[in-house]
Amino acid sequence: MPVGHHASYIASVHPILLSFARIPPSPPLVTDGKSKMDYMNGPGRNHLFVPGPVNIPDQVIRAMSRQNEDYRSPAIPALTKTLLEDVKKIFKTTTGTPFLFPTTGTGAWESALTNTLSPGDRIVSFSLGQFSLLWIDQQQRLGFSVDVVESDWGYGADLGVLESKLRSDSQHTIKAICIVHNETATGVTNDLHAVRKLLDAYRHPALLLVDGVSSICALDFRMDEWGVDVALTGSQKALSLPTGLGIVCASPKALEAAKTAKSVRVFFDWKDYLKFYKMGTYWPYTPSIQLLYGLRAGLDLLFEEGLDNVIKRHTRLGTATRLAVAAWGLKNCTEKEENFSDTVTAVVVPPYIDSSEIVKHAWKRYNLSLGLGLNKVAGKVFRIGHLGHLNELQLLGCLGGVEMVLKDIGYPVKLGSGVAAAAAYLSNSTPLIPSRI
Amino acid sequence: MPVGHHASYIASVHPILLSFARIPPSPPLVTDGKSKMDYMNGPGRNHLFVPGPVNIPDQVIRAMSRQNEDYRSPAIPALTKTLLEDVKKIFKTTTGTPFLFPTTGTGAWESALTNTLSPGDRIVSFSLGQFSLLWIDQQQRLGFSVDVVESDWGYGADLGVLESKLRSDSQHTIKAICIVHNETATGVTNDLHAVRKLLDAYRHPALLLVDGVSSICALDFRMDEWGVDVALTGSQKALSLPTGLGIVCASPKALEAAKTAKSVRVFFDWKDYLKFYKMGTYWPYTPSIQLLYGLRAGLDLLFEEGLDNVIKRHTRLGTATRLAVAAWGLKNCTEKEENFSDTVTAVVVPPYIDSSEIVKHAWKRYNLSLGLGLNKVAGKVFRIGHLGHLNELQLLGCLGGVEMVLKDIGYPVKLGSGVAAAAAYLSNSTPLIPSRI
Amino acid sequence: MPVGHHASYIASVHPILLSFARIPPSPPLVTDGKSKMDYMNGPGRNHLFVPGPVNIPDQVIRAMSRQNEDYRSPAIPALTKTLLEDVKKIFKTTTGTPFLFPTTGTGAWESALTNTLSPGDRIVSFSLGQFSLLWIDQQQRLGFSVDVVESDWGYGADLGVLESKLRSDSQHTIKAICIVHNETATGVTNDLHAVRKLLDAYRHPALLLVDGVSSICALDFRMDEWGVDVALTGSQKALSLPTGLGIVCASPKALEAAKTAKSVRVFFDWKDYLKFYKMGTYWPYTPSIQLLYGLRAGLDLLFEEGLDNVIKRHTRLGTATRLAVAAWGLKNCTEKEENFSDTVTAVVVPPYIDSSEIVKHAWKRYNLSLGLGLNKVAGKVFRIGHLGHLNELQLLGCLGGVEMVLKDIGYPVKLGSGVAAAAAYLSNSTPLIPSRI
Amino acid sequence: MPVGHHASYIASVHPILLSFARIPPSPPLVTDGKSKMDYMNGPGRNHLFVPGPVNIPDQVIRAMSRQNEDYRSPAIPALTKTLLEDVKKIFKTTTGTPFLFPTTGTGAWESALTNTLSPGDRIVSFSLGQFSLLWIDQQQRLGFSVDVVESDWGYGADLGVLESKLRSDSQHTIKAICIVHNETATGVTNDLHAVRKLLDAYRHPALLLVDGVSSICALDFRMDEWGVDVALTGSQKALSLPTGLGIVCASPKALEAAKTAKSVRVFFDWKDYLKFYKMGTYWPYTPSIQLLYGLRAGLDLLFEEGLDNVIKRHTRLGTATRLAVAAWGLKNCTEKEENFSDTVTAVVVPPYIDSSEIVKHAWKRYNLSLGLGLNKVAGKVFRIGHLGHLNELQLLGCLGGVEMVLKDIGYPVKLGSGVAAAAAYLSNSTPLIPSRI
Repeated sequence: MPVGHHASYIASVHPILLSFARIPPSPPLVTDGKSKMDYMNGPGRNHLFVPGPVNIPDQVIRAMSRQNEDYRSPAIPALTKTLLEDVKKIFKTTTGTPFLFPTTGTGAWESALTNTLSPGDRIVSFSLGQFSLLWIDQQQRLGFSVDVVESDWGYGADLGVLESKLRSDSQHTIKAICIVHNETATGVTNDLHAVRKLLDAYRHPALLLVDGVSSICALDFRMDEWGVDVALTGSQKALSLPTGLGIVCASPKALEAAKTAKSVRVFFDWKDYLKFYKMGTYWPYTPSIQLLYGLRAGLDLLFEEGLDNVIKRHTRLGTATRLAVAAWGLKNCTEKEENFSDTVTAVVVPPYIDSSEIVKHAWKRYNLSLGLGLNKVAGKVFRIGHLGHLNELQLLGCLGGVEMVLKDIGYPVKLGSGVAAAAAYLSNSTPLIPSRI
Repeated sequence: MPVGHHASYIASVHPILLSFARIPPSPPLVTDGKSKMDYMNGPGRNHLFVPGPVNIPDQVIRAMSRQNEDYRSPAIPALTKTLLEDVKKIFKTTTGTPFLFPTTGTGAWESALTNTLSPGDRIVSFSLGQFSLLWIDQQQRLGFSVDVVESDWGYGADLGVLESKLRSDSQHTIKAICIVHNETATGVTNDLHAVRKLLDAYRHPALLLVDGVSSICALDFRMDEWGVDVALTGSQKALSLPTGLGIVCASPKALEAAKTAKSVRVFFDWKDYLKFYKMGTYWPYTPSIQLLYGLRAGLDLLFEEGLDNVIKRHTRLGTATRLAVAAWGLKNCTEKEENFSDTVTAVVVPPYIDSSEIVKHAWKRYNLSLGLGLNKVAGKVFRIGHLGHLNELQLLGCLGGVEMVLKDIGYPVKLGSGVAAAAAYLSNSTPLIPSRI
Repeated sequence: MPVGHHASYIASVHPILLSFARIPPSPPLVTDGKSKMDYMNGPGRNHLFVPGPVNIPDQVIRAMSRQNEDYRSPAIPALTKTLLEDVKKIFKTTTGTPFLFPTTGTGAWESALTNTLSPGDRIVSFSLGQFSLLWIDQQQRLGFSVDVVESDWGYGADLGVLESKLRSDSQHTIKAICIVHNETATGVTNDLHAVRKLLDAYRHPALLLVDGVSSICALDFRMDEWGVDVALTGSQKALSLPTGLGIVCASPKALEAAKTAKSVRVFFDWKDYLKFYKMGTYWPYTPSIQLLYGLRAGLDLLFEEGLDNVIKRHTRLGTATRLAVAAWGLKNCTEKEENFSDTVTAVVVPPYIDSSEIVKHAWKRYNLSLGLGLNKVAGKVFRIGHLGHLNELQLLGCLGGVEMVLKDIGYPVKLGSGVAAAAAYLSNSTPLIPSRI
Repeated sequence: MPVGHHASYIASVHPILLSFARIPPSPPLVTDGKSKMDYMNGPGRNHLFVPGPVNIPDQVIRAMSRQNEDYRSPAIPALTKTLLEDVKKIFKTTTGTPFLFPTTGTGAWESALTNTLSPGDRIVSFSLGQFSLLWIDQQQRLGFSVDVVESDWGYGADLGVLESKLRSDSQHTIKAICIVHNETATGVTNDLHAVRKLLDAYRHPALLLVDGVSSICALDFRMDEWGVDVALTGSQKALSLPTGLGIVCASPKALEAAKTAKSVRVFFDWKDYLKFYKMGTYWPYTPSIQLLYGLRAGLDLLFEEGLDNVIKRHTRLGTATRLAVAAWGLKNCTEKEENFSDTVTAVVVPPYIDSSEIVKHAWKRYNLSLGLGLNKVAGKVFRIGHLGHLNELQLLGCLGGVEMVLKDIGYPVKLGSGVAAAAAYLSNSTPLIPSRI
């Protein structure tokens, strides 16, 4: 779904990130010293299909339901040691160095940039949706000189432009390439391997910095094989934890760059972490004990299922969703099949429908949480997140719900059509649960 | 689905209550002092559609995630006082006296019987499925003289036989009528009001003892209006708590009967409870602190939604399920519409299919838990429980899953057909969530 | 502390089991559909030193914070299988058969009696405190002919009387000996081995039924070695779980007796359990999924520490408590050292003090929960429970608190004296935590 | 305890922040896909007396044991609105604007500095312990020109030096005063009101930036009255939550300064927050849903107890601790009574004892977590944190434990002496728990 260029969109980024009910209702009643929580509760479960934060496995919730501990006792360093070793596996790296920042994806971005670059450094950055846009906004505010390579929303990163820039940069003025692996706003997955091949073809030393927020642990991602220099994700995405960990992984080349990078940084500085890694105490400041145990439980589940099986499950859920969308007669915001995302599908609605009404209605009537269209595609798409701790029947429930919402909102959907299309595929592709065979 | 009479069925009751995998797999590995839990875990949520235990609201799980307390401090009696007052509302009684036994439904049965009857007492009891059968088995083992009134499985209680018995019992030798409101094995709901009207018509003083295990908090139940003398349920059913509370409610007439009932009883004796009620300390022995707080949270949620709205939600979910079953071309085990159950649907499978394969397969491939057919209908029906903390999209996920299972197992189902039928109804009948309007 | 005999005490049993605040305060405010919980909350932790329910390890609370599951799937039988195997270890039996009843200790008592005895059977039962008294009350109400062997409260079971009864019972009219291992009301531990030796000396075939409610998992208990026929405990005692499991273990001889025992029973009948054990599905009716996982976690912790180390820890905590009591110049309710209990200490207060004031005050000012004196020793003793999931510093906090309460209430205690006495002992006897060496 | 100046201490800051067991033990065994957690577990509760992270109330743990939610639905903004309103109360401000950053105290520092200052700005900053030192380190790395005002460790901020700097700064080159309210490393509380009075006396417009990490919610703190421009704390300190929220509150003057401050910032930028506050959606990036609900529960508990009562409780616990230290014949690291801290006490050990041995031993034998001495006072002091969700008996348990440790380690302590001194004071000062009167 190509959406025309607008020179002014960076300025207008934020106002679009609205809650779908702009004016929150009256505050919860506070009575006799106790507030009422969950006051927008509905019967049964919430069906959480935003592309993050995602459903948390019960095992993780249990692991996190826990007291604080002294993080300077030997227990927490010993736990951390296993986490740092194991978290490398989700990046498919053996040479990378991971950092578990107590922050969000936005903070992880900042850590990736400020540790490897100096103010004024030239970087090439791809703009193809709200999240790549926000990252570019951050790059500019941090003082880098950003070559923005734009794509219409719904299209992948324009590697042709990258190639021409690399070709003409014999002086190696480009210090880094910044790219989102999966643009969460449009459901577009970029080909990172192709980026690496271009860099190699031109023997260009630019660092390759990758936002894997909505891809890592769900899509095929290979840090070492693809020569990614910094990769990052957030705990509340495919890892299926609460928000609170910005996980950053640096290649040896990135660590080397960090030694001379002049960007100002303290909280996000890798140097402090490395110092404490060396001492074996790991933490320059207080970590969330609960998130560490949660990460332990989450990684255990991931490895029990098998990372490649997790990725296959996402392929299955993504394919099933796209089949349903097609059966409804609706369009995927993503134009080319090669860019289809297995973690989020942005569904284009007909012009006579405001997609935010779909999101509101789903929540108000069916306890179904869908993603809004953002910025350029606000009102034009709604998003189904299908990442993280999720299985086939949960997705069918969601698809059945979307069908009812579409009908309610006036779109002539054939009820059951999307579910049927998804089920036909899933009943042929879903494996038996290994522990139950 | 009439199933012929078998004289020997009482003897054969238990062997049919099998796990669907008779030989459990090798035990969990125990290593370095820690057992592995959840070792039959699968990705995503379990879809729990057995007719009990049912899905627990997160608020209840939270309320129960709690330390022990001294139950003799003033806090627990004060909490108990509110529970006893509020739990009467789920029975729709103002005159009844509730007891919260630390037991299961089977224990609640025993409490109802032993507190109101004496060994040798004649009772009329309706046999129409596995659970009424088990209750009759208990009645006989407790030493009562039981007039068993049989119905073919799939039919409701035969009130014609009751009437003739009442008519001919001018001596009032019948001391009690025992009836399940909803037979969980066949999905048959009986007309309690009709029973009361018969008793009244013949001015018969027999006590009316009702198993409301799979009805109370889900189906229309009116203790006072229908003159029920003892009603009972279990916490793990429509109340949506863990197993552990057998909730028994006694009418003034039942309390009066308890004064002379000679059945031996101690643990289940109402007398001890009444003594402690009077003292204001409420508990003759140690209650589960956690279940008390869980019950508090569960009742709060129930009243927030409104008991009548909860019942309507069950009507909605039951109707939608039946529409799906019809769309699949399958039969409801329940023969007459007047007995259709809004908490559980027993679905009859074609003779060439073993229904227990459906249940196994659903669990092994789709993480979907369905109910087995029991005893006479073993292999012939599978059951969809649709009671408790459940909403429309959860049900659609289940129905979509059943469709895939039916296809997998060789039944020529049209994928999407049941979901479509259910959704067409639900999209016309589901109200907006009040807190979100 | 000998307390004179009173012929009438059985009748007066219950009224004494009071909450320490007889009139509960006004009920919690219910506002906008939500009740206020925890409304008698105070700052910081509750210090739980009643002799049950006891402190639950966080690992157990976490393991239990969990959804319901289908108990007929293979997962629950597989879990149950490990539990039944492992729970035998806490009884130190290899030949016994355990039952995990969804009930309390009172129900476990009933199960022990009704499965092994017939109405009218003669049993010898020792009365030495409130709980042995309640068990005797149950025995009588269940229709047995009870030879009550009384001891003054504070003294152990009178084995001399038992010996003379055995000697004169050449006809073996005595069918069972019932004894509490540890009388929770007075803190008296009986010598079970001596009972066995007497039975053996007289080659008497009477069954030996033992209430191990406040002993098993805390005191030295050896079912096989001491020839105990039925032993039982409750989950909320030294096992440190919530209330809800009555754990009963039967010797082969007890199982044999069950075949002919004529006491009426259904819910508590071992026969139904054995039938399901054989089938491999284990449960005749719905268990609490949560308690099963909690038991798994609790047993794991127990075996990780080592049962004998757990017993030693209780010896340590009991000894330290007694040293503190002596330092305060107060008397232990237990007269003879050989009966000192390592799970509960009943402390005799001077006549000018009402011990229930101590309990009230401790709770109201210091968030310290102590046990009331019951029945004959009401007002005369308060109890410190020191069983279950508890360590040395928790006990010191309690002892420091008791000192402040004693001072507040007008007893001329030397502040710090009890703590000092306990600490002097503990600092010589507490081992390093093995996992931290 | 004055400790001499060392020119080189900034360089040597980090190596001292050791775990007390520098080499963590072998990693947890990973078996059959599951890691062993809690593998340094010991019997009973951990006694957590480090000055953060602190004990979390069960209500908060429960409130946080929760699924993710769509933070763009109306529920989270409505919740956030109440939090932002209520969190101002803990700062005692009505004019301030709070920010709930998903970060730690270190991040909150960075947010306070970068939003109000420009590179090269002159600031006056007080160095009096490890945490003020780390803040100064951050200030320098962020490019400010820092006038470090040093005090010997154990002494408060040298306001005489501040006064002379203010007096001579008629050009107002000083842009900000940075001060920790309570230096956690030495247990020194500074007089903020005096700082304000100096600024006012010299009509100096410098901003007053306050680290309230170990003071806010525990010590008397008055943002508006004392003219504090930025105050900050972390969720894991007196608020008694897990780590993860850096709570920053800005005065109108600070917000004004933010408009022109040139420090580079994105993640920590107030501007983005303010934009979303205006829109009513509140979050520029994903918050931790769990921490928001936890904060709600924590604030509810705080207001239920009453903030001033919470502060009094800390005064009580701090005083009791100091009385114990004196009774042991040990010195408080804090030299002057006016600087005594009610949240943490650093206890000076005799020269022949290595204080880190005390900390190790407490953890290894008694499951007691104490704070290490840091940097200049490493080996010389150990710290008792007495802040957050804590009551009198918990403290007595800790003090009893410290006594045993001191004895074990070779210090001639009189067992019980510290507990006695603390108890004598506490039994005169502890109020009844209001909800239990």
